[in-house]
Amino acid sequence: MPATEFDIIQRYFREGAGKVSDAHAKTVRCGIGDDCAVLAIPAGEELLLSVDTLVESVHFPKAYSPALLARRALAVCVSDLAASGASPLAFTLALTLPVVDENWLCEFSAALAQAASEFGVVLVGGDTTRGPLCMSLQVMGSAPAGQALLRSGAQIGDLIYVSGSVGDAHAALACLGQAPQNLNDDQRYLLARYHAPTPRLALGFKLRNLATAAIDISDGLAADLTHIVNVSGVAAVLNLQNLPISPALQRTGDAIDSALSGGDDYELCFTVPASRRADIAVLSESLNLALTEVGYIEAGSGLRCYDAQQNLYSPRGGYQHF
Amino acid sequence: MPATEFDIIQRYFREGAGKVSDAHAKTVRCGIGDDCAVLAIPAGEELLLSVDTLVESVHFPKAYSPALLARRALAVCVSDLAASGASPLAFTLALTLPVVDENWLCEFSAALAQAASEFGVVLVGGDTTRGPLCMSLQVMGSAPAGQALLRSGAQIGDLIYVSGSVGDAHAALACLGQAPQNLNDDQRYLLARYHAPTPRLALGFKLRNLATAAIDISDGLAADLTHIVNVSGVAAVLNLQNLPISPALQRTGDAIDSALSGGDDYELCFTVPASRRADIAVLSESLNLALTEVGYIEAGSGLRCYDAQQNLYSPRGGYQHF
Repeated sequence: MPATEFDIIQRYFREGAGKVSDAHAKTVRCGIGDDCAVLAIPAGEELLLSVDTLVESVHFPKAYSPALLARRALAVCVSDLAASGASPLAFTLALTLPVVDENWLCEFSAALAQAASEFGVVLVGGDTTRGPLCMSLQVMGSAPAGQALLRSGAQIGDLIYVSGSVGDAHAALACLGQAPQNLNDDQRYLLARYHAPTPRLALGFKLRNLATAAIDISDGLAADLTHIVNVSGVAAVLNLQNLPISPALQRTGDAIDSALSGGDDYELCFTVPASRRADIAVLSESLNLALTEVGYIEAGSGLRCYDAQQNLYSPRGGYQHF
Repeated sequence: MPATEFDIIQRYFREGAGKVSDAHAKTVRCGIGDDCAVLAIPAGEELLLSVDTLVESVHFPKAYSPALLARRALAVCVSDLAASGASPLAFTLALTLPVVDENWLCEFSAALAQAASEFGVVLVGGDTTRGPLCMSLQVMGSAPAGQALLRSGAQIGDLIYVSGSVGDAHAALACLGQAPQNLNDDQRYLLARYHAPTPRLALGFKLRNLATAAIDISDGLAADLTHIVNVSGVAAVLNLQNLPISPALQRTGDAIDSALSGGDDYELCFTVPASRRADIAVLSESLNLALTEVGYIEAGSGLRCYDAQQNLYSPRGGYQHF
């Protein structure tokens, strides 16, 4: 059993998620093992970075699968790079563990290495400490100077889009504790959406010169779109009958509330000038990813939602962190 | 009382440590409040970054002063930038809190803002979550391409130096629980060294073209110097009678063990070609900081320590994280 922090890093991370591939060798000048990691940001590009913390019993259930946890933690964090239109580069992991459990570390680190490879990031540093199970990941990427997607650029007349489908992960929460053999196909689908969100990196990359504002949906569409309108100084109108709802979610009954107020889907919500509608249709086809027009930006402030009968609908609040 | 994560960030961090000064405006293109922060790394420079986690009851005592905690957390992390010769730029804070305690947040954020200003870094992002008290800070700096100080460059014949004095913070641990009125002047001095370590940023910056290897002493001189010799593929000889020991530590009795095996001082240990001895003397004078020659690098592996009688001395191990 490994006794020291150095053993753990060497055994589980340096040769896994920390292994610098040829593709990353130009960027990662010094990875795990020194006081600082050294990264060469591509010439003409800016550094984009984001941090996410996951705490046991708050952001994931007790005794959660270490493999799912590793993938989900990295996906959630990389999703912020996607929302900013970044090309992914690297990440760090601050991992706090109550005990050194070799099986847990084996599963966690193997899944982390696989997810890092899938998302195109390499582990370049971190800290391993003893304490209640939690982790903070910081992801880093880059984009040409001035081209990062921000929340603040939405313009009056822009169309509002959502990628994929929303609400699935929220609906999955009700099935989290159930035995696998008791799950039906819909529940299995929803759980997969919760456990293994897909950061929309390719979409974010393509939106660099197309979207005026973007955000990833982590707190719920209503809450996250409200961030866009607040910092952009505009108002948004959502047509609820247009929300992209998966067949599985449709059959659970509570689709609109889940779609509007449930977080954890990590789809992108973005705004686009109305003149670019055709470009979005082409992009949707080329990415093989639904990009659904759900509303528009107008003058004013706040968010108004209309149901199929054109009645005003009040969404519940997004995820409250405290 | 602030109820949401957004309130907390807005009230305590955005206008404090997150306030972008004119000096940082060129670097910080987008700070707190978007999916990603956007940093412009100076042209021709590489990004240097490091992460440190502090967990309550492991890295700091329960009910520790939030002001001391903020300063110490940032200092410990910035110390890694110093050891790499970086110019400090920015940092992120992943803060996990059991409850929203307004007094605690007030004191913590005010001290963090002051420390950030002192160390020349601006808070550009993070995550605020609920859970057992802990925090991960990631600091970022830059250095001209290829000039970052690494642990791996020590050469046979190099001299080994240590900044300031070592062992003070370790000796302070014995006084941590004592009532202030029961402390003598020596204990007060040692405690100040523990509570408020000084990252040696100016020294690290000047060592860029002078030192062959450097590390900050967080786990103890013996352990940290061993990292240098292991990754450099050389051996080190330490003359214990040359270790820079403060008068206060000298009077506690256990000076050599504290100096050799006690962590938390955050002084720098570095190696320099013997031909540059005079440059170090000049640097010491210009920085008004003791830079003490404590040994040399030779062929072989491992670390040998000799006491004043030239007897071999076995250091205890450094700080074990697990």
